[in-house]
Amino acid sequence: MNFKEIVEKRYATKKFDGKRIPEQKVGELLELIRLSASSFNLQPWKIKVVIDQEVKKKLTPVSWDQPQIESCSHLLVLCADTNVNVDKLEELMLKNGAKKEDIQGYVKIMRDFVKRLNEKEKLEWATRQVYIALSNALNGAKSLGFDSCPMEGFNADAYSKILGLPQNLVPTLVCPIGYAADMPKPKLRFAREELLI
Amino acid sequence: MNFKEIVEKRYATKKFDGKRIPEQKVGELLELIRLSASSFNLQPWKIKVVIDQEVKKKLTPVSWDQPQIESCSHLLVLCADTNVNVDKLEELMLKNGAKKEDIQGYVKIMRDFVKRLNEKEKLEWATRQVYIALSNALNGAKSLGFDSCPMEGFNADAYSKILGLPQNLVPTLVCPIGYAADMPKPKLRFAREELLI
Repeated sequence: MNFKEIVEKRYATKKFDGKRIPEQKVGELLELIRLSASSFNLQPWKIKVVIDQEVKKKLTPVSWDQPQIESCSHLLVLCADTNVNVDKLEELMLKNGAKKEDIQGYVKIMRDFVKRLNEKEKLEWATRQVYIALSNALNGAKSLGFDSCPMEGFNADAYSKILGLPQNLVPTLVCPIGYAADMPKPKLRFAREELLI
Repeated sequence: MNFKEIVEKRYATKKFDGKRIPEQKVGELLELIRLSASSFNLQPWKIKVVIDQEVKKKLTPVSWDQPQIESCSHLLVLCADTNVNVDKLEELMLKNGAKKEDIQGYVKIMRDFVKRLNEKEKLEWATRQVYIALSNALNGAKSLGFDSCPMEGFNADAYSKILGLPQNLVPTLVCPIGYAADMPKPKLRFAREELLI
């Protein structure tokens, strides 16, 4: 399937059939998400994959009772990570052959950037990056032959508690994946002229 | 090119060769962006496409002097739109065959959602959606045979002034597109175990 077909066929699936996606396919999707773009390549995100039906049941009432949570195969909870680790990225660059003197300018820019953000700004900056990762999850699922649904409508605090997440990880988006048990409606978008300024 | 190849081959191009992308291809890219997912499908974004070299020259100093601005073919300025128009979406749904009584619950949820946001929250919510559209721009460019670079590093106020944007449109991300004049570096990402909680 080429990218145009993926984008045209992807839709927010409202109900899944409960069938399990093979773990290998889920691994391929996680790989596509892992390769997402992010600001400075700092990748300020982490993902909790939920498959336990009991946990999903607990998450349903704090997700506006939406049926995707329990009917999906795997529930991806995409979290913003406010523990932004420039050291770790520098280490990765050095391990992959970069020379310290070649990257020290870039590393300083990153450090200064992160230092200038207060906690609220840092969370918001990380949160925005998660939306890029989400997009790869949505398109990636369709490319691998299954379906997905992007969801902002859930109680992040309740998710944190139920999933036992540390404070630095803030649930930002939920993305159930699985095989659709509904049919896509026609794709409605504003006209091209509305898109352009 | 399948989605995996797109994701693997896409990279933040630092320099373009100045060659112009055919308008038809740019149109195909805009179509891929237009079909992006967004919260409630409200599509709170607009895009300014800059091709005028004089305008690009003015934008360069307010873009950290990054060479992509002038060397690219088309500069996409992705803006968050705080004029969130539920009426327009409702109209689009009705025009496409939805029955008023079937969608009134959904329309009310959207209206209540937008009403609850203050101006700052509305801008932030719209801004996050723009990151999904950006992702389709990045992957879409590669799928169509050219390159791109996601950029957060620019002065949004200066962009607004230079481009004469109305107050409701806030430049959020800049995405130069064109043909690369640099080579991609190896793609570095944290390990899979780091991605998962």
